[in-house]
Amino acid sequence: MSISKYEIRAGAYYDSVVLMQLQKSLAGLEGVVDAGVVMATPANRDLLQATGFDLSNMEEAGPDDLLIVVNAGSEAEAALAINQVDELLRRRRSTETHDFRPRSLKGAVDALPDAKWVLISIPGRYAAGVTEEALDLNKHVFLYSDNVALEDEIRLKRKARETGLLLMGPDCGTAVINGIGLGFANRLRPGNIGIVAASGTGLQAVSTGVHNLGGGVSQAIGTGGRDLKKEVGGISARQALDLLGRDPQTEVIVLISKPPDATVVTELLAAAQATGKPTVINFIGFAAPGEQLGNLKFAVNLKEAAALAVDMSSRASSSPAADKPVRVSSDAPYLRALFSGGTLAYEALLALQTVLSPIYSNIPIWPEQQLANSLVSQAHTVLDLGEDEFTQGRLHPMMDNDLRLRRLHQEAGDPAVGLIMLDVVLGEGAHPDPAAELAPAIAQVRASRGIEVVAIVLGTDEDPQDVGKQVRALEQVGAVVFRETADAVLYAAERLRPEVSYDYLPLPLADFDGELAAINVGLESFYESLKNQGTNAIQVDWRPPAGGNEKLMAILAKMRTK
Amino acid sequence: MSISKYEIRAGAYYDSVVLMQLQKSLAGLEGVVDAGVVMATPANRDLLQATGFDLSNMEEAGPDDLLIVVNAGSEAEAALAINQVDELLRRRRSTETHDFRPRSLKGAVDALPDAKWVLISIPGRYAAGVTEEALDLNKHVFLYSDNVALEDEIRLKRKARETGLLLMGPDCGTAVINGIGLGFANRLRPGNIGIVAASGTGLQAVSTGVHNLGGGVSQAIGTGGRDLKKEVGGISARQALDLLGRDPQTEVIVLISKPPDATVVTELLAAAQATGKPTVINFIGFAAPGEQLGNLKFAVNLKEAAALAVDMSSRASSSPAADKPVRVSSDAPYLRALFSGGTLAYEALLALQTVLSPIYSNIPIWPEQQLANSLVSQAHTVLDLGEDEFTQGRLHPMMDNDLRLRRLHQEAGDPAVGLIMLDVVLGEGAHPDPAAELAPAIAQVRASRGIEVVAIVLGTDEDPQDVGKQVRALEQVGAVVFRETADAVLYAAERLRPEVSYDYLPLPLADFDGELAAINVGLESFYESLKNQGTNAIQVDWRPPAGGNEKLMAILAKMRTK
Repeated sequence: MSISKYEIRAGAYYDSVVLMQLQKSLAGLEGVVDAGVVMATPANRDLLQATGFDLSNMEEAGPDDLLIVVNAGSEAEAALAINQVDELLRRRRSTETHDFRPRSLKGAVDALPDAKWVLISIPGRYAAGVTEEALDLNKHVFLYSDNVALEDEIRLKRKARETGLLLMGPDCGTAVINGIGLGFANRLRPGNIGIVAASGTGLQAVSTGVHNLGGGVSQAIGTGGRDLKKEVGGISARQALDLLGRDPQTEVIVLISKPPDATVVTELLAAAQATGKPTVINFIGFAAPGEQLGNLKFAVNLKEAAALAVDMSSRASSSPAADKPVRVSSDAPYLRALFSGGTLAYEALLALQTVLSPIYSNIPIWPEQQLANSLVSQAHTVLDLGEDEFTQGRLHPMMDNDLRLRRLHQEAGDPAVGLIMLDVVLGEGAHPDPAAELAPAIAQVRASRGIEVVAIVLGTDEDPQDVGKQVRALEQVGAVVFRETADAVLYAAERLRPEVSYDYLPLPLADFDGELAAINVGLESFYESLKNQGTNAIQVDWRPPAGGNEKLMAILAKMRTK
Repeated sequence: MSISKYEIRAGAYYDSVVLMQLQKSLAGLEGVVDAGVVMATPANRDLLQATGFDLSNMEEAGPDDLLIVVNAGSEAEAALAINQVDELLRRRRSTETHDFRPRSLKGAVDALPDAKWVLISIPGRYAAGVTEEALDLNKHVFLYSDNVALEDEIRLKRKARETGLLLMGPDCGTAVINGIGLGFANRLRPGNIGIVAASGTGLQAVSTGVHNLGGGVSQAIGTGGRDLKKEVGGISARQALDLLGRDPQTEVIVLISKPPDATVVTELLAAAQATGKPTVINFIGFAAPGEQLGNLKFAVNLKEAAALAVDMSSRASSSPAADKPVRVSSDAPYLRALFSGGTLAYEALLALQTVLSPIYSNIPIWPEQQLANSLVSQAHTVLDLGEDEFTQGRLHPMMDNDLRLRRLHQEAGDPAVGLIMLDVVLGEGAHPDPAAELAPAIAQVRASRGIEVVAIVLGTDEDPQDVGKQVRALEQVGAVVFRETADAVLYAAERLRPEVSYDYLPLPLADFDGELAAINVGLESFYESLKNQGTNAIQVDWRPPAGGNEKLMAILAKMRTK
C-alpha cells in the first residue's frame, strides 16, 4: 500500500512542458511510487483517481490551480518529495537557454519586426485576447490553444479576413508554412501539393503520406476543427483555397476535414472548383458524390488522399485542362429531376446535394430537404415519382408515363428551370416504348425556352425496347443522353455549378514565400522546434494577466531574482 | 375553358394496366381534352386537381373506389365520354388472351405444380394474406406490392426462413432468377456475378452495368427496401448471401442497398466475409470503411459497383485466396485503440464501426457509441486521448506519453482485451523518442497474456525522431507496425472479425437451377413478361375478397357472361 500526498498551488501558471518534467522528476525520487503534476481541473482529478491516486479528501480547486500529488511508500517519503518541488523547478529553470525573451507580444514584434507569424499555445481562456493583439499588430496567427469560445473564433476570423490575415485555429495542431512546421508537423520534401485541413493529424497523415510516396508539399494550412461548422462558414478554408489557387508553387490541392456542415460543403466544393487546380477532397466519413467532379477527386480515406495527390502532382503540369460544359443561363439556374427509379433518384440527390443548394426532394436525405408539397417543385428538386404517394392505385411510372409527362410540362412552365433530368428504365415489365411517348414532350420542352433535358437510359442491348432506338429517339429531339446516373449527375453538376467569387482581401502571396520568422507565445517545445528548424524565432515570456494569481506570481518573481 | 365530369364506382377493382388503358381510350374520344382513371385515394385526387381537373365538389371516396374523370369541351361531350366507360372496358376484355386462369392460388398450384415461384402485385392491403398462402403452399415469393405492414413483413420473412423459402419484398421491384426477370428486369447475359439488392433500380442499374461491360449475372435477388432495417434485420439478404456463397455458378457477389441500419451493417458485412467470395458492397451514401476489407470491396456508386464486379469476375477463378490473418482468441475478442491523433481515431472508428459491434468511443460518430465514462473502456473502444477532457492543463499525448502508458496497462488488465492499437505520431513538436517510453510498456503487455499490439507510426524519413529506429524499437517488443491508419484498421478488422454462422434452413440450391416456372397474382403485364421470356407461367384471376364490393362484382360477373 502506498500513501497519497498532494499540494495545491492556487493560481500557479507553468508551461505544460515544465509540469511534465516536474512530474517525471518527482516520480524518480527515492520512495516515490508515482507522481502527478497537472492543472486541477475536475477531469484531471478524475484521471488521477482512476490511476491510483487517492484524492477523495481534496478541497475545491480549479483550472488556474496547480495540483501536485505523489504516491509514496510512507507519509514521510511523500512529504519529502512534495517539499522538493521548488528545488526541482529551480534546477529546471537554470538549464533553460538564455535567449532574450520579451515580456509582451509588442516587445517581440519590436525585436523581430520581420516575423509575420505568431504561434499561440497558452491556455484557451487567455488565447482570444493575445490573438486579437497579434491581428492588431498585422500578424498571421497559428492558434494551437483549445477551449476558445466559438463566438471569439467567428469574430477573430472575420477580423483577420478583413485585413488579409490568416487565423489558423483555435485548436489548430499543425501547419507547414514556407517549409517550416508550426506546432506538430512532420518534416517534408518541398513540392507542388498544397494542403488545407480542418484536422491536425489528418494533415499530418496526408502530408506524411505524400512525402513517403515521393511527393512534396508547398504549403499545409490548418484551419482548426470548427472552421467548417455552419457558424464559422469555413472562413479560413476559403482563404486558404483562394491562396493556393493563386500560388504558383501549388499545382495540386488537398482538402481534408471531418464531414463539414452540409451548407458549407457546397460552398467549399464550389471554391475548390473555382481554383481550377486538381483538388483531392477527403471529408472523412462523408459519402462522396462520385469518384470525380470536374477538377475534384474524392478520396475514401487519408491514405488514398495522399496517393491521389501524388499521382496527380506528377502529371499536373503536363495534363491539359479538360473541356468543361458551359454553365446554363443564370436566369434559369434550377434543376428538376423526375425519376421513375427510386434508387437512381436517391443516388442523384446524394451526389447533387453536395454541389447544388438549396435542393429539395420527396425522398429527402436530410429533413431540411423535404419538399413542402410533392406536387410543386422548389429551387433544385429531385423527385422520385415511383414513391407510394404517386403510385397508390395507379401503375408505376416505369409502365405508365402519364404522370411524368404532366410533370415535365409543369416544370417547363417554370421560368427558373434550366435543366430537366429524367430516367428511362427499360427491360421486362417496363413500358414497351417509353421514348415514343417522352420524345414529343421533350421536343416541346426544348423548343419553348431551350431548356436542357438530360436523360438516363438504363438498359441492355437485349432488352425488348431496343435500347439503341430509345437513345436515338431521345437524342433526335435534343436530349443529352447518358447510360449511367453517375455520369448524368456529374454533367448536370457542371452545367449548374454555382458562380463563386472571393470578395475579401486576398492573403498576400509574399507572406507565403521566403524565410519564415515567427513569434511563439506559449509552449516552450514549439519555440525549440522553430529554432531546430533554423527559423528566426522569438519566445515571449508570457504570464497570465495578474489578478487572482498574485501569490504565485510573487513566488515566481522571487525565483527569477535568485 | 373545359368542363370536368367525374364518376365514382364504389369497390371497383381493376388491374392497374386496365385502368391506364381505359384512361388512354377516354382521352382519345372526340371532344375530350384530358382524362383520369385512378383509384380514389386522396393523393390521386390531389394529383388530378394539380393537373387541371376540377374535383372541388367530389364526395368522399377511398382506395377501393374507382375515380373516372374527364375534361371535355362541353358538358355533353363529357357525359358522353363517361357513358362509354363500360363499353371501353368490354372491348378491352375481348382482346385478352384466353389462357386458363384459375381463380385461386391453390388452383394455380394444382395446374402448374412445378412452379416454385409466386409473383404477387395486388394492392398492399391484400398482399400479406396471399403471400402467407403461397408460403403455406411451399413457394418462394416475389412480392412487388407496397403498403404492406412492417409487422407482416417480419412475420412472413421469419416464416419463410424457417422453411427454407425466400420472400423477396414487399416493395420488391426486380429480380432475375435462373435467367428469368421477375417484375421490372433487364435482359442479361448469364454469368458468374450474383447480386443481392434492397433496392429495385439499384439492382437494375448494377445488373445493366455488368451486362454492358461484358459481364454476366448468375442470380439477382431483391429483398425489398425495408429488409436491412433493424426491425427486419436483413433476413432476406442473409438468406441470399448464404445461397450465393454456396452457389457454384456465382464467383463474385454484389450487395446493394441504401445505407442499412448500423446494427445490420456489421452482421451483413460479416456474412459477406463468410462467403469467402469477392464481394462488392455499395451501401449508397454510406461512408465505406476503406477501399477493401478482406474479400470485400467498397464501391462509391452503382456505376463503380458494376465495374468492380466485372473486373473481379474476370479474375475470380484464377486469383488465389489471400492469406487472412487468423482471428484473435474468442475469449479475448475486444479491441482497445488508444489514439493521440484525433483524426486518426475518427478514421479508425469510422472504419471499425462497420465490422466491430458494439463499439464505443469518447468521440462517438453515433450517439449510441458514446462511452459512458471516458476513463473506463467497454467492449470495443476507440479513444482519442488528445480530446479536451484529457488535455486541459496538461500536455498533448503526442508530447507526453504518461496518460497513454497508464491507459495501456489499464486495458491490458482487462481479460476481454485481445488487441490494443495505438498511434505514434512523429515530427516537429512531438515527443523526441516516443518508442523509448512505449516499447517497454508494450513488452509488458505482450508478455502478460500475449495481447496483440498494433502500432501506427506516422512520420517521414526526415523527422527528427528517426522513423526507422522508432519502427524497429516497437517491432522488437512484438508490436505489429503499420505506417497508415487505414492499413492498421484493416488488419485489426480481420484479426477481430466476428464468427458468423448461418443457423437456418438454407435455401435449396436446386430451386435456383434449371427452368423457372411461376405463378402470377396481380399485374397482367408481369404475366405477359414471363410468357415473353418463354417461362412456364400461369395467371391467377385474382379479385379482392368480396364484402363491400358486391355492386361492382355483380357488374363484372355480368360482363364476363356476355
